[in-house]
Amino acid sequence: MAGKSTPNATRRSERSHRAILDAALELVAEVGYPKLTIEAIAARAGVGKQTIYRWWPSRGAVLLDAFVALGERAAREAQEAGEPGDGDPYAFPDTGDLAADLKLVLRATVDELRSPTYDLPYRALAAEGIVNPEIAAEFVSRVMEPSVQLYVERLRAAQRAGQVAADLDPRIALELVTGPVTARWLLRTLPLSHAYADAVVDMALRGLSPR
Amino acid sequence: MAGKSTPNATRRSERSHRAILDAALELVAEVGYPKLTIEAIAARAGVGKQTIYRWWPSRGAVLLDAFVALGERAAREAQEAGEPGDGDPYAFPDTGDLAADLKLVLRATVDELRSPTYDLPYRALAAEGIVNPEIAAEFVSRVMEPSVQLYVERLRAAQRAGQVAADLDPRIALELVTGPVTARWLLRTLPLSHAYADAVVDMALRGLSPR
Repeated sequence: MAGKSTPNATRRSERSHRAILDAALELVAEVGYPKLTIEAIAARAGVGKQTIYRWWPSRGAVLLDAFVALGERAAREAQEAGEPGDGDPYAFPDTGDLAADLKLVLRATVDELRSPTYDLPYRALAAEGIVNPEIAAEFVSRVMEPSVQLYVERLRAAQRAGQVAADLDPRIALELVTGPVTARWLLRTLPLSHAYADAVVDMALRGLSPR
Repeated sequence: MAGKSTPNATRRSERSHRAILDAALELVAEVGYPKLTIEAIAARAGVGKQTIYRWWPSRGAVLLDAFVALGERAAREAQEAGEPGDGDPYAFPDTGDLAADLKLVLRATVDELRSPTYDLPYRALAAEGIVNPEIAAEFVSRVMEPSVQLYVERLRAAQRAGQVAADLDPRIALELVTGPVTARWLLRTLPLSHAYADAVVDMALRGLSPR
């Protein structure tokens, strides 16, 4: 049944869309990604399986959209709750003190990775991306790359200010800061903490060689 | 039927064990981890499902043992092929030139992660570990931790030689070298190459600050 796109149909469609994304996030937290199915998402959202397959090809694709929507909602709420002039919550701080700015951002990343709201769907998407290159490419372009660009811009500003060596590729330099945290989180080698985030930033900035 | 442990029964059992591990590695390369099942491993190995479940609780546990066996076999072959006096293939080089030694090892890691023999089962195990903490713990203790210890020992030697700052925690310092490569490989953000491995080692050793 091909419905006409009346205002009511559009509203119903938006409600279903949102219900499906919410259901995917709830279920991945409750049963884990290995047991997440399109059937279960459809039942929880109160829609038919076909409604989901009309919009998404796979459970990984649903979860990716749900995760992106979660981030957008959190950013909107942070902006609404913030004082006027707080500025763009997506912006990277630039106080002129590069170490302090990197620590602030990396500590916030650690907090996010340790919070169940983000950890479970984020981890599920990372796991899916590891064996599914299409999901990985979308995950990188929609979730990773925007924050990578903020790091690159901050490091370029530090290069202009003479605080980072001018000949370093900022695209690789940022990975010395983010890579250890990402690897520790994904492989669960050792716990993440603010002290760890600080140690990584300090080592990345000054290097391992003696002063 | 509880068989007596005669020499023949033991040999048959060893053959089945090996056949199951080989089947798991072949199948993960052919059909991918999402479609790897105990049924398919049993059929390929020519054993019953119950034989697998007697030894392993899950497909992830089979694959972990298969991956460890693969590494052991490769190390044995390298040792047998090597000239006498080549030494332990698991040892970390120590030529006195820390940058050169780290680059040699990190380039070899890049080669391993790019080779289909290792990439597919390794990636599957990492994906399973991300959503399955028990497999993650075994993966870390049996696959990651032995090589982490080799890095720690090499960095401690460099500290004694005055080439690495004495106050750095080598357990964190090594992650500045390995973390970026692991994160790039797992998240597939950008390609791995020898040039990338070299750049990471150089940045980790000298830091990002201007000289």
